[in-house]
Amino acid sequence: MPQSTPASEPHASLKETARIWFESLRDALCTSFEAIEDAQESSDRPAGRFERTAWQRPTEDASSGGGGVMSIMRGRVFEKVGVNVSTVFGHFTPEFAARIPGAAEDPRFWASGISLVAHMHSPRVPAAHFNTRMLVTRQGWFGGGGDLTPLQLDSAEAIEDAAELHAAFQAACDRHDPAYYPRFKAWCDRYFFLPHRNEARGAGGIFFDNLASGDAAADLSFIQDVGRAFLETYPRIVRRRMGEPWTGADRDALLVKRGRYVEFNLLHDRGTLFGLRTGGNVEAILMSLPPMVKWP
Amino acid sequence: MPQSTPASEPHASLKETARIWFESLRDALCTSFEAIEDAQESSDRPAGRFERTAWQRPTEDASSGGGGVMSIMRGRVFEKVGVNVSTVFGHFTPEFAARIPGAAEDPRFWASGISLVAHMHSPRVPAAHFNTRMLVTRQGWFGGGGDLTPLQLDSAEAIEDAAELHAAFQAACDRHDPAYYPRFKAWCDRYFFLPHRNEARGAGGIFFDNLASGDAAADLSFIQDVGRAFLETYPRIVRRRMGEPWTGADRDALLVKRGRYVEFNLLHDRGTLFGLRTGGNVEAILMSLPPMVKWP
Repeated sequence: MPQSTPASEPHASLKETARIWFESLRDALCTSFEAIEDAQESSDRPAGRFERTAWQRPTEDASSGGGGVMSIMRGRVFEKVGVNVSTVFGHFTPEFAARIPGAAEDPRFWASGISLVAHMHSPRVPAAHFNTRMLVTRQGWFGGGGDLTPLQLDSAEAIEDAAELHAAFQAACDRHDPAYYPRFKAWCDRYFFLPHRNEARGAGGIFFDNLASGDAAADLSFIQDVGRAFLETYPRIVRRRMGEPWTGADRDALLVKRGRYVEFNLLHDRGTLFGLRTGGNVEAILMSLPPMVKWP
Repeated sequence: MPQSTPASEPHASLKETARIWFESLRDALCTSFEAIEDAQESSDRPAGRFERTAWQRPTEDASSGGGGVMSIMRGRVFEKVGVNVSTVFGHFTPEFAARIPGAAEDPRFWASGISLVAHMHSPRVPAAHFNTRMLVTRQGWFGGGGDLTPLQLDSAEAIEDAAELHAAFQAACDRHDPAYYPRFKAWCDRYFFLPHRNEARGAGGIFFDNLASGDAAADLSFIQDVGRAFLETYPRIVRRRMGEPWTGADRDALLVKRGRYVEFNLLHDRGTLFGLRTGGNVEAILMSLPPMVKWP
């Protein structure tokens, strides 16, 4: 039987560290979000709590497998927030292997990551997306990013919130390479764009893939800093906005805006399409879709 | 200046007849649906009426252009129903021309058609999709189909409704070619399928494309019969079901079921993806999306 993991060092030696990081970051995010649910006392509804569901990747033999845990909370501040962690390994199909770094000559891969999407009750609180991941084939690399989707891109509040998250990501980037932030911010703007609407999905953030600086431990440290930046910043933004008043018309506008989010994820998001086409866990992949949407 | 229309005869001689047919069928469908709105007297809401919006295809010179009219009604029986007619002409891009019959050597095309999607307030009334179209390049052909999407595929009512529409389509098909119905019914089942959910979008109907029997006038007559079958049958099904009682739980299940409709249209529907990628009218293309949807 072949080894169940490819031969890329030093990424291979970091796999367990990365997996544990993603899971501990998940725990910290869930704890932080549940504390926000507790803090929103003006609601009649009970404070939300995360529910966890584990899933296994279908497998034919011991050389592929793994799985993940979906954590989902339907609360009074967070209308629907999902935090997925997964650690999977196996073989890319020949079609995919040809397009994946290091997989052409050896299709075995290992991947671990965290992915988060938050859709909020209040139209005053921006929706958020965040993820980071580590991939190992004969090569190894990291990817990820995070961004905000406010209802009104040009409102003073949306500009303030976006500036705060952008600054936190910039600080995380600058600790590692001053070239990262401008590159990853532009990549985010380019990626989260709806060509058929000729509009941005949201207020941007950072996005990066195939990150392999030559120092795998430093790269892992970088995505940990990105994770901490999101963990420190987004909850602060939510707390600042969640008490602000809003109208039924605002809420209706939010439900329409969410339609653009669905259009992006189903028409363009490479992660979503990759997952659906490669037999990923459908519930986990589509957990990103908003709880209620209107196309009036 | 080149002729603005390609040289396919006899389809070219039927263009005006086809355009007038699609527009008159649109008028008959809208009249029939507005009469249903009037008939639903138990509602507190006013009877819906169609609103029409014309759009022009952006054009650089007289060799391309055309446009369409969106008719949309937000009523008390029909939560959202759109009926688009369009008649457009121009040149396929080289990328598309290579894949379109008769367009490889001459990229000019003319296309006219009608497209309808109905999403209903009541979870007891199936949603419906219907379209027929005529294409002319150096060749000429017809395409179209119609199908129902009930909330519960296996309910006695859904089975009865589907059988009635299927029988009407079969009668329309059998008047022209007994091979049509089994072929077009199977094509519909194959086409309206969500592989990532491993489930059918709905209860089926018929679906066909590239129809060119060798007798263009007979083919036009066939799609007219398909249109009449839908016009006679779907309003009868709506009237039969619209007074049936339903619960809030049924309505919630309908909003979730509609998520599958969105997933199909944005992930798989060739017409939607073709339209969005070729700069079609976004509002007209996405008029098919349901007015309210849940991914809970």
